[in-house]
Amino acid sequence: MYSEEIEDLLRKSKVKVGDFVAIEKNGNTMEGTIMPNTGDPGILVVKLTSGYNMGLTSDIKIKKLDKEMKKKKPFKYEHDKSKKTILILHTGGTIASKIHYETGAVHPALTPADIVSSIPQLGDLVNVKAEVVSQIWSDDIKSDHWMLYAKKMAEEHSRYDGIILTMGTDTIHYTSAALALMLHNIPKPVLVVGAQRSSDRGSSDATMNLVCAAQFIINGGFAGVGVCMHENMNDDYCLIHPGLHVRKMHTSRRDSFRSIDKMPIARVNMEGHIEYIEKIQQGKTFRPTIVFDNRVALVKLYPGFDYKQLEYYEQNGYRGVILEGTGLGQAPINSVDEFTKDHKKLLDAMRRMSKKMIVAMTSQCIYGKVNMNVYSTGRLILDAGVVPVSMTPETALVKLGWSLGQEKDLERAKKLFLEDVAGEFVDRVDPRAFLN
Amino acid sequence: MYSEEIEDLLRKSKVKVGDFVAIEKNGNTMEGTIMPNTGDPGILVVKLTSGYNMGLTSDIKIKKLDKEMKKKKPFKYEHDKSKKTILILHTGGTIASKIHYETGAVHPALTPADIVSSIPQLGDLVNVKAEVVSQIWSDDIKSDHWMLYAKKMAEEHSRYDGIILTMGTDTIHYTSAALALMLHNIPKPVLVVGAQRSSDRGSSDATMNLVCAAQFIINGGFAGVGVCMHENMNDDYCLIHPGLHVRKMHTSRRDSFRSIDKMPIARVNMEGHIEYIEKIQQGKTFRPTIVFDNRVALVKLYPGFDYKQLEYYEQNGYRGVILEGTGLGQAPINSVDEFTKDHKKLLDAMRRMSKKMIVAMTSQCIYGKVNMNVYSTGRLILDAGVVPVSMTPETALVKLGWSLGQEKDLERAKKLFLEDVAGEFVDRVDPRAFLN
Repeated sequence: MYSEEIEDLLRKSKVKVGDFVAIEKNGNTMEGTIMPNTGDPGILVVKLTSGYNMGLTSDIKIKKLDKEMKKKKPFKYEHDKSKKTILILHTGGTIASKIHYETGAVHPALTPADIVSSIPQLGDLVNVKAEVVSQIWSDDIKSDHWMLYAKKMAEEHSRYDGIILTMGTDTIHYTSAALALMLHNIPKPVLVVGAQRSSDRGSSDATMNLVCAAQFIINGGFAGVGVCMHENMNDDYCLIHPGLHVRKMHTSRRDSFRSIDKMPIARVNMEGHIEYIEKIQQGKTFRPTIVFDNRVALVKLYPGFDYKQLEYYEQNGYRGVILEGTGLGQAPINSVDEFTKDHKKLLDAMRRMSKKMIVAMTSQCIYGKVNMNVYSTGRLILDAGVVPVSMTPETALVKLGWSLGQEKDLERAKKLFLEDVAGEFVDRVDPRAFLN
Repeated sequence: MYSEEIEDLLRKSKVKVGDFVAIEKNGNTMEGTIMPNTGDPGILVVKLTSGYNMGLTSDIKIKKLDKEMKKKKPFKYEHDKSKKTILILHTGGTIASKIHYETGAVHPALTPADIVSSIPQLGDLVNVKAEVVSQIWSDDIKSDHWMLYAKKMAEEHSRYDGIILTMGTDTIHYTSAALALMLHNIPKPVLVVGAQRSSDRGSSDATMNLVCAAQFIINGGFAGVGVCMHENMNDDYCLIHPGLHVRKMHTSRRDSFRSIDKMPIARVNMEGHIEYIEKIQQGKTFRPTIVFDNRVALVKLYPGFDYKQLEYYEQNGYRGVILEGTGLGQAPINSVDEFTKDHKKLLDAMRRMSKKMIVAMTSQCIYGKVNMNVYSTGRLILDAGVVPVSMTPETALVKLGWSLGQEKDLERAKKLFLEDVAGEFVDRVDPRAFLN
């Protein structure tokens, strides 16, 4: 429900949620569909014909229009030899959502041609080839899709100056980690780009994220996999995050993506101003390794964690488990207190499982390195065969499946898993990157 | 291993790791035990007789002493009627660790009397009653201990001006959430205090955290449960975090604790200067509810999450599961893509389980509210009976066990779980608290 003030306005204007309307504000007129309230009840949300939401206060005039949401002209692609050319692979998600009328929620259905035609700045800047590679929420994107996207990029990158993958934001960091490993040393820039819902501000961050990504591709001299998202709430700069060290840190802010333990690669604005912060070194040999073994899991530990939960992975043919431990890589293994009954059973399970699969330790702190040598409990867990990996739990999960996908033999897979292939291990934590 | 320079110094001084030595630096002499290197190889770490580590560069003289680590005089408690009196409950952890000679790692073994005698500032400030309530790593602290500590506090708080609980840092935020719920409206200040390993700087943050906590207790006019830890790396101020909205965000920094979605309650320094940032309102009726049902779990979702993992909880008599979803509270439930075979089975499992237990959704973003009304997938998950809760996954887990501990009936437990009892629900996200 909207606030009384907004509901009053709707009543007086004789319109309701779902109606296609003309809106007059400060002498300007816009057309769009009235959306149900999902955020601030004092802000009327209107889905404009461009596909993006606008938030409006009650100082507007509303008039119902008898027609449907305008059908847009199909995007006509005209190649301009003087411009660089990028490939946009579209996977689904907020960045290309349109209203799902039945529920009032958004559902992925827009084509890339729609994106490009609605962002003329992109057409001014580059030649665009757009392709729909999936129609899927980011939450449903998994290893099969990562491999599909990587295969496409491996096949087509030489024909373009760079590639943008658009997707829903929720799992961008899993996808970027997978692409960074599968396409290690790719000689072209690959940027994963999303848009956060921004009904609170009534504007979309999709345009800026896409244009900044295109600017970085054509002017950045970058090769490798990054994530391009808002730097802050000011709509001025985007950050290019390293694909293996980035994470969604807020459920809704446009600046929710943050580099973890590393600095971002660069900041870039829509005019193409680029400031490099921390360059990434790539090797010259591009040999795509587009594999993944799905028999991996990510398990978060917590006080009172029931060790029997781990037995599922033992009994169901899993080949690897990433534990998200506490602090430096600890787990509730060694209670010396009278209250704990299952003394050492978690440690026993770790020891047993480490003989059959790769069991690795990360930290739920998110920031900072894992170091299991500091405390006696950590040493016991190390002794049980659990291997510490200083990377985000999300990147560790992807690295694990990717390593196991390459090697049938467990020891060889473990060796690959523990080897720093594409800079995925955090060797030195950058203190500037903490909560920044 | 230490750097060549440090190893040289040790060799020339004819001492090795584990030796008790006298160290001369700038004319001052200290005694302590040479520790193995766990951080910067260029910094020699010496465990002083006070129990704290000091980091030293090579510009020192070292002489081996033939005696053992000095035994300290037992702390003699002298009550001073002019001072306020605090109760320190000691549970174990880094804050009171001493060297574990066999492994070179630390192991909890110091008594509270040792703490107080090694921190004379504390004795100058307040009368202290110290008690060992457990000898346990924070990772092994679970609901039984939370209840033990809460019971002690409920029984004894009226005799003191405030209570400090010292513990290892890894799970402070789980403990503080449990105490905040079990002791809601306690009319005295209860502060959970820990210390981070600080071998990188060669100093301990234990002293400052404890003295700041004591200052806030005697001068803050506060009642309720908070966490007192370093604000930054400058050793100048501590923050008092709300017990229900705090999280360890870095594996090793002394300023790793951060308020999540709420501002800290106050900043305080060792001289007792206090700046309130965001006061917490408590009610007047203190009725401790010291219960917990252990049949709860915390499960992190991720791309490709195998829904069968949830069946463990169904089959093993669990009464509640906190899901750590992606973004606004999403899950890989609804792939519309040809690649996903287990179409909707995760949703089916959620629906089935929601009839038998409480299944709640939080977000792995850590920051920001959950909102499952925005996307059609979120709506489907809501429709399956999963309830969204805007709090950290860690606080949600504690709230779930606490709610189920009070109510045998599932519906009543769910009602309590979804009711804001002690301000645990994040009603309004404070933008200032994001990554701050």
